[in-house]
Amino acid sequence: MKLVIGDKNYSSWSMRPWVLMTHFGIPFEEVLIELGEPETKASILAFSASGKVPCLVTDDGLAVWDTLAIAETLAERFPQHALWPRDADARARARSVSAEMHSSFTDLRSTMPMAIRTSKPGAGATPGTLADIARIDALWNACLDASGGPFLFGEFSIADAMYAPVVMRFNSYAPALSPKAAAYAARMSAEPAVAAWIEAARKETHRIEHDEPDA
Amino acid sequence: MKLVIGDKNYSSWSMRPWVLMTHFGIPFEEVLIELGEPETKASILAFSASGKVPCLVTDDGLAVWDTLAIAETLAERFPQHALWPRDADARARARSVSAEMHSSFTDLRSTMPMAIRTSKPGAGATPGTLADIARIDALWNACLDASGGPFLFGEFSIADAMYAPVVMRFNSYAPALSPKAAAYAARMSAEPAVAAWIEAARKETHRIEHDEPDA
Repeated sequence: MKLVIGDKNYSSWSMRPWVLMTHFGIPFEEVLIELGEPETKASILAFSASGKVPCLVTDDGLAVWDTLAIAETLAERFPQHALWPRDADARARARSVSAEMHSSFTDLRSTMPMAIRTSKPGAGATPGTLADIARIDALWNACLDASGGPFLFGEFSIADAMYAPVVMRFNSYAPALSPKAAAYAARMSAEPAVAAWIEAARKETHRIEHDEPDA
Repeated sequence: MKLVIGDKNYSSWSMRPWVLMTHFGIPFEEVLIELGEPETKASILAFSASGKVPCLVTDDGLAVWDTLAIAETLAERFPQHALWPRDADARARARSVSAEMHSSFTDLRSTMPMAIRTSKPGAGATPGTLADIARIDALWNACLDASGGPFLFGEFSIADAMYAPVVMRFNSYAPALSPKAAAYAARMSAEPAVAAWIEAARKETHRIEHDEPDA
């Protein structure tokens, strides 16, 4: 399988399936397309009619796009891995928090863009973004209290992969977090697949002005 | 099960699981909370910590929120119904177009708000919204060409429920569509579960100024 992604420093949606597949040892060939360049759109359209990354291309050439669809398709095709929690109620909750990440937190995503190489404590902390962060903090606490941790639903799952880019934003912009949420963010940053993505992002040299926090 | 929803005239996210469950005859008790009122947030929080509609509450009190999580959970719990297409590749594509609806088309959602009782041909047609509509039109054509119709993946599925509110917007704002997309929108509007939602929306009297197209 091929996983088509954008820059690791910037592409928050790409990070999710990459971290997920890497964590579970699902083999894939990485195709990295630098975003924000004149040829970017055409390069992506060669893989996905949506024109967006990420896109998973299966061995028989089927394009599966959009993070949640990729995650569900992988969960279905690799039942030997617990991509979702095995317990049905926990799975329903994990899908809820994952879908909430997928559809919401637009203020956070807008004022604290993922830019892993950036360190700008305090930047982007608008009231709307702080409200998004408060909701995420409460949601992480509720999940960790219910599961006992160390990840949102016990073992690492799609839900953690969905929130990995949020952890990157918290690392860059350092908003105030509850102790439990801060400890979870630290565990996530040290998780080997997440750490591997961060390390690769730090080595990239391509820069997209539009996605830098001062843009 | 209880399905907590907002006003049928306005709540596009609520429309999706309601139409889905109604189409497949999955029994539920409807709990309608009028949006945009001082007590709205507290009323929703009594059911879902996300503070948003829709929310499905199972018979044993489990809250499942966000449209895609509700859809996946229903698909898993009612395997006797083909909520997703039965073919694995078609299912992966159906999940892709559903997730694209879930995460994208922000211009369309912003300049052509769902307000079923409204008829304003030509309103909201910004360049960004027209680009969203062009993508949706192409996507519908590709799905209908591949499946043969009458719905996106042959029989009515979650993918159609995801695009039902887009059809409502097209009915209100009447953008130019390809013949195949226009015919699909007409079929969707006549589908009994969709038609039942429209009829109920027309009977509502509660009005949210913020969600009217001139807001």
